[in-house]
Amino acid sequence: MSGMRIERLAIVGVGLIGGSLALALREAGAVGEIVGCGRNPAHLETAQRLGVIDRGETEPAAAVQGADMVVLAVPLGAMREVMEAIRPALAPAAVLTDVGSAKTSVIRAARAVFDTLPSGFVPGHPIAGTEKSGVEAAFPDLFRKRRVILTPVPESSEPAVARVRALWEACGAQVVSMAPEHHDEVLAATSHLPHMLAYALVDTLARRDDSQEIFDFAAGGFRDFTRIASSDPRMWHDICLANHDALVTMLEAFSDDLRLLADAVRRADSRFLLDTFTRAKAARDAFCDGTGEPES
Amino acid sequence: MSGMRIERLAIVGVGLIGGSLALALREAGAVGEIVGCGRNPAHLETAQRLGVIDRGETEPAAAVQGADMVVLAVPLGAMREVMEAIRPALAPAAVLTDVGSAKTSVIRAARAVFDTLPSGFVPGHPIAGTEKSGVEAAFPDLFRKRRVILTPVPESSEPAVARVRALWEACGAQVVSMAPEHHDEVLAATSHLPHMLAYALVDTLARRDDSQEIFDFAAGGFRDFTRIASSDPRMWHDICLANHDALVTMLEAFSDDLRLLADAVRRADSRFLLDTFTRAKAARDAFCDGTGEPES
Repeated sequence: MSGMRIERLAIVGVGLIGGSLALALREAGAVGEIVGCGRNPAHLETAQRLGVIDRGETEPAAAVQGADMVVLAVPLGAMREVMEAIRPALAPAAVLTDVGSAKTSVIRAARAVFDTLPSGFVPGHPIAGTEKSGVEAAFPDLFRKRRVILTPVPESSEPAVARVRALWEACGAQVVSMAPEHHDEVLAATSHLPHMLAYALVDTLARRDDSQEIFDFAAGGFRDFTRIASSDPRMWHDICLANHDALVTMLEAFSDDLRLLADAVRRADSRFLLDTFTRAKAARDAFCDGTGEPES
Repeated sequence: MSGMRIERLAIVGVGLIGGSLALALREAGAVGEIVGCGRNPAHLETAQRLGVIDRGETEPAAAVQGADMVVLAVPLGAMREVMEAIRPALAPAAVLTDVGSAKTSVIRAARAVFDTLPSGFVPGHPIAGTEKSGVEAAFPDLFRKRRVILTPVPESSEPAVARVRALWEACGAQVVSMAPEHHDEVLAATSHLPHMLAYALVDTLARRDDSQEIFDFAAGGFRDFTRIASSDPRMWHDICLANHDALVTMLEAFSDDLRLLADAVRRADSRFLLDTFTRAKAARDAFCDGTGEPES
């Protein structure tokens, strides 16, 4: 993105997302100094050695000192504590964003921490990731052609929103805005519910007596289907609590539909089964066509 | 597989599986003539043009005439009808196998059709496939390093079992034997249940008012998770009916576990959620290590 320039970027939480953001912005020539913040000094040294950050700080307040852009890339459960820690040190003109997978909870935390939300505060969420975690898994192209959803609050200033948009566009992402509540609904449907199903399926099978044999005979479809069950448990624990209401609603809707399908299998209802599978295949095929990404 | 030689192979149902088997055996130099059988002459012409079969027959009885190896690669719902059709024409010394995804139902069909099961009858199931169907999607390496499960019946002769084993080993597959009922349980767990979940999830989301937007924001994890919902609806309809009992049992076990997980999300039970996700991740990671196939 031409014109995007950050003098000092502070990334609190240098994992897959924070690390990839640093690498992408550096590659785009969009950033001067990158300060990484994390609790573990050894981890920060690794990030520095990998060229992800220029220096590391273990204290969030020290990390955001003098930064014109601050990105919170910590687990959702740590957002409030980190905001408390940076509040006194945050420059008034700094832009503050985050990468949390649920947005109303981040905004709720910010409202609890700041008397008045800073005009530089623009919550965001890059729809990207892998089942891997940690800075070692970071790579600069993680956000290329991916969507980033911004959920500005009434207090967010237009220039701040534009800066965060430019930040992600510099990484090759496509940026859209929506209401925080709507974001949480959409993500509950497309990401949080599927993760619950993958975790539940693998756990159901793993607790069987013949689990080793079960997994031995699982083929490629199972591998694809359960890949997301290799995601970070702590992160998903946090997402469940943070996006609680939308996820509960989706789990209930899905469970109802699954019960109908199970009943149809039980009574061998040809028409119901064929209709459901045909509708689903048409939707899945249309969805994949729509993204322009070929199946392999 | 050295020594494997089929003089005339009849493949009834020249789709992804039947077509790939033909290509693999030809590549291995293990087969003389390949006769393909299907209802649609245009489809058979395509298979011939693609070099998959040497000639096509629309009548199963004509196709199996003089064949020393007969492979039934039709949907499960068509097995019984095809067996009826080939019965009068099947050479007494012919080996007869199939590729159906459920085995007790195929054996039940065979027992209904044949007064005495032929000693050449050896049910089988290659654990391979893609979400694509049709002979155009066939490729010779489909079975390479994949498992094939044989479920011999008491009537199956040892030489016939050895022939079917050699058939699949010539395609690069790893062949194991197990009881038909056990096969059906294992497949219900690793394949049939995941397909139900993927179909149900896509259908749940597709019927929402905001489905287009939902799919627009779905990322790579969702794509992987739902790939199997692009599978052939008719084939999966047949599998649901054919593997009815084992699938109903698995659907009930999973629904119970999902209910427990949903309850834990509802009451924000940190410990339950973290334990479940941690167990599932450990099982998934161990499963993938076990196969020796790296994640990408």
